[in-house]
Amino acid sequence: MDMLWNGWGDPAKAAPLPDTVTGLLRDLLGVKPHTTPAPALEDIRLPEPTADPAALKSLAEAVGGADHVRTDAESRIRHTRGKSTPDLLRLRTGDVSDVPQAVVLPASHDEVLTVLKTCAAHGLAVVPFGGGTSVVGGLAPERRAFVALDLRRMNGVLDLDPVSRTAVLQPGLRAPEAEALLAERGFTLGHFPQSFEWATIGGFAAARSSGQASAGYGRFDEMVLGLTLATPEGTIETGRAPRSAAGPDLRQLILGSEGAFGVITSVTVRIRPLPEARIYEGWRFASFEEGAAALRRLAQDGPRPTVLRLSDETETLIGLAQPDAIGAGLARSDAGCQAIAGYEGTAEETAQRREQAAAVLRAAGGTLLGAEPGERWAHGRYSAPYLRDALLDAGAFAETLETAAFWSRIPALYAAVRTALTDTLTETGTPPLVMCHISHVYENGASLYFTVVSAQGEDAVAHWTRAKHAANDAVLAAGGTISHHHGVGTDHRDWYVKEAGELGIEALRAVKRRLDPEGLLNPGVLLPTD
Amino acid sequence: MDMLWNGWGDPAKAAPLPDTVTGLLRDLLGVKPHTTPAPALEDIRLPEPTADPAALKSLAEAVGGADHVRTDAESRIRHTRGKSTPDLLRLRTGDVSDVPQAVVLPASHDEVLTVLKTCAAHGLAVVPFGGGTSVVGGLAPERRAFVALDLRRMNGVLDLDPVSRTAVLQPGLRAPEAEALLAERGFTLGHFPQSFEWATIGGFAAARSSGQASAGYGRFDEMVLGLTLATPEGTIETGRAPRSAAGPDLRQLILGSEGAFGVITSVTVRIRPLPEARIYEGWRFASFEEGAAALRRLAQDGPRPTVLRLSDETETLIGLAQPDAIGAGLARSDAGCQAIAGYEGTAEETAQRREQAAAVLRAAGGTLLGAEPGERWAHGRYSAPYLRDALLDAGAFAETLETAAFWSRIPALYAAVRTALTDTLTETGTPPLVMCHISHVYENGASLYFTVVSAQGEDAVAHWTRAKHAANDAVLAAGGTISHHHGVGTDHRDWYVKEAGELGIEALRAVKRRLDPEGLLNPGVLLPTD
Repeated sequence: MDMLWNGWGDPAKAAPLPDTVTGLLRDLLGVKPHTTPAPALEDIRLPEPTADPAALKSLAEAVGGADHVRTDAESRIRHTRGKSTPDLLRLRTGDVSDVPQAVVLPASHDEVLTVLKTCAAHGLAVVPFGGGTSVVGGLAPERRAFVALDLRRMNGVLDLDPVSRTAVLQPGLRAPEAEALLAERGFTLGHFPQSFEWATIGGFAAARSSGQASAGYGRFDEMVLGLTLATPEGTIETGRAPRSAAGPDLRQLILGSEGAFGVITSVTVRIRPLPEARIYEGWRFASFEEGAAALRRLAQDGPRPTVLRLSDETETLIGLAQPDAIGAGLARSDAGCQAIAGYEGTAEETAQRREQAAAVLRAAGGTLLGAEPGERWAHGRYSAPYLRDALLDAGAFAETLETAAFWSRIPALYAAVRTALTDTLTETGTPPLVMCHISHVYENGASLYFTVVSAQGEDAVAHWTRAKHAANDAVLAAGGTISHHHGVGTDHRDWYVKEAGELGIEALRAVKRRLDPEGLLNPGVLLPTD
Repeated sequence: MDMLWNGWGDPAKAAPLPDTVTGLLRDLLGVKPHTTPAPALEDIRLPEPTADPAALKSLAEAVGGADHVRTDAESRIRHTRGKSTPDLLRLRTGDVSDVPQAVVLPASHDEVLTVLKTCAAHGLAVVPFGGGTSVVGGLAPERRAFVALDLRRMNGVLDLDPVSRTAVLQPGLRAPEAEALLAERGFTLGHFPQSFEWATIGGFAAARSSGQASAGYGRFDEMVLGLTLATPEGTIETGRAPRSAAGPDLRQLILGSEGAFGVITSVTVRIRPLPEARIYEGWRFASFEEGAAALRRLAQDGPRPTVLRLSDETETLIGLAQPDAIGAGLARSDAGCQAIAGYEGTAEETAQRREQAAAVLRAAGGTLLGAEPGERWAHGRYSAPYLRDALLDAGAFAETLETAAFWSRIPALYAAVRTALTDTLTETGTPPLVMCHISHVYENGASLYFTVVSAQGEDAVAHWTRAKHAANDAVLAAGGTISHHHGVGTDHRDWYVKEAGELGIEALRAVKRRLDPEGLLNPGVLLPTD
């Protein structure tokens, strides 16, 4: 099944907006319904392809036939950009300026190597394409002719070692299929990001994804034990041991490289036994500060839940369908801040860990709300992007951004980003709704994930771009990283350059020049083009 | 205090050989006492320095005066190579061919930058020098004039953030001093490698050290949250958050770079509260295989002890002072394999974890031996290198090597390395004693640490070099990494090149050329020179 071409996910799962939200949009945010309908897929007019027919013929030979080189309009449109809100809004106005020349579907590592050589010979850039779920411009290279390298045919489990608890996965394997194949053998990967239904193993590795159960299972980059990378200059194979002192960790050079150094063609991951028990519970804290301190205690001293997240006051009210309390300045609600703590594992270990974590949360001021909020969260854990579609349909703007920092910087970072978003989005007269949660915790810090809802206004993309740039500036000024788990892409690139520093970027450019001397791979994503 | 110039550590801690070992050396290994005494420090004749006096003058200006540029014979000899057995044997025959031109002692990051520029101007190579404890040729650059950059003046704690539990440490800080300074504030780093008494923070980072409590506190590279690197081309600063999706992890490019990319001038580490309780206990397993399976269960399913190690049959007998049982083919001993499990933390958590881990070990066939073996291990945890000095004095040869692999490869790797060492060292007629332990465990694999004792023979260095090369070949053939925690150096470099692969090495050479275009930094260590 394909995703909605100009929205998120499975069209059958489209969710109507709750009445409370419709009221909020109208009364608090001044959202006005669209007056012109968005174009249908078949109405989109594509720019003429400029690729040499000989190039397409060679590519077809490289991947086992013309069936695997798609040049039809629908395939090309479905590989145009990713799933950020500006990406979707542009498609909804018929802007397909980032469309690939063709979609190429290789079936093996060797086919990928041949595709890269063929593209080099014909001057075509290459954008590796997994689930297409990037929300940071990871699939929109700087303007030049390119092909989308869709890895969906490389979607198998190549090996599973139950003694070492490792599995070798192909990059085009989507997360649900990976979980299903591992479950047949009694294992799980434990990686459940919001993009779970659509995103792929290769994409998780290329963009350093982090899932909702990262407190228990770790980030994706922590699960990776080995990688194979196909580059225009050949192959890099990494990972002979879980840890090594043999030089710099090449795995960590490939992780996060976003297709700029090569195409990830296999990923060796750690796997864990399927949990016997899963418990998710809600907690209430009086304030975000109090809740964050409680999360920090568990992250630092344990025991560590498998899922641990905390919504700020505004997000809590929206989640509880009390958005009218926001208009009243929060005074009408005593909802405080809601946290979710989840535990997965063997029945005995889970019960013990839950009891001990609950004691810590209670001592830190938490009130147990029981299983209902936890189950509600688990049920809706992948639904936010569907809700975004409904908001966009209703004429509202909705987008997210995220960062991470050391614990001591979290309060100032939270305030700075909220202020930046609120100030810039209020400039045009419509105050936004800014919500935040902590969804990933570490001994030394945490992530902050912001959701913004506002009116679309005259030019929603330009409006948001200003706000996003201000938020990026605020993140760096407050000591945060430009991305905790969305990645760099073209959207974060210029701030990433500041974060990594001139010489750090130069070191990475040196790697890119060696592996991709003609600059074919995802040009302008991650690193500025020369 | 300085280390013994041609041996290990504090001369006052020199340990005489136990009688049982003396008997073993004579009867089992055919060790003969030396007939010629090793030269004294003052008898060593150094090659004439070739460095331009103008270079030394500029260096003195760079580091605040001539006091901090040492050219006396003792300083130069004390910075000649590291502490591998071949290093020590060469010194004991008066071979100082790897002596630096001078020892330069900078006091700050900026001084390091200036030293690098000065050395570039004068064509001098630079070998960063922390504790001088490398056992893999990490301080012996390919032959050309070089200065040792001794970082001992940069030995402070620059910052400590008790909320985030982070500390910024200078590279020349030795581990005991780091622990003492952190303990004043109630914290520990938890990094206790065998080199603990002498090694430095910068060295731990540069060579990816791993300590004896790695099961609980993690490897050193897992403790590092940020790094500052001084290179001939400027500075790289990393680490704005515990984890990030902002591109490749530059920290992991610097960790393990062994001075080849730059000089680490500060390290931000995670710190933990000082433990209230420390319990170390001994366990007995019938075989190495049974013990390894027990360790794997704890590593994979928990609860994880803080210290977890297992000696094979031979190492167990030596540790129990029953070496005569080895000569009798192990048949006279029912010692089996001894394991140590240690627990550190709060009193309550430690007691609970110990109880649960003990249940797992018992279910896996283990017999608890009580606290005595654990305390004995803890008491002697840094003493093996002192024992090596005594063995060398007695005319024996003793050296170690280590590797790591995924669990399923461990049995074949263990057998292959033992066979390689035994076969090559028996060639000259003297069968060696080969012992092994597992001292670092992960969910997906473990380390193997081998100790070899044999007669020195006619040319002990050449003898060992053959055995070591055979062991390196065996490690790679059996799927292990060429080093789990000693590093690459010149000793492992050619096997490291095979492990990382041609293109992986080329990527790292591209980084080196960008950061160190004149190839000043530790030439030939880590990467082959151009």
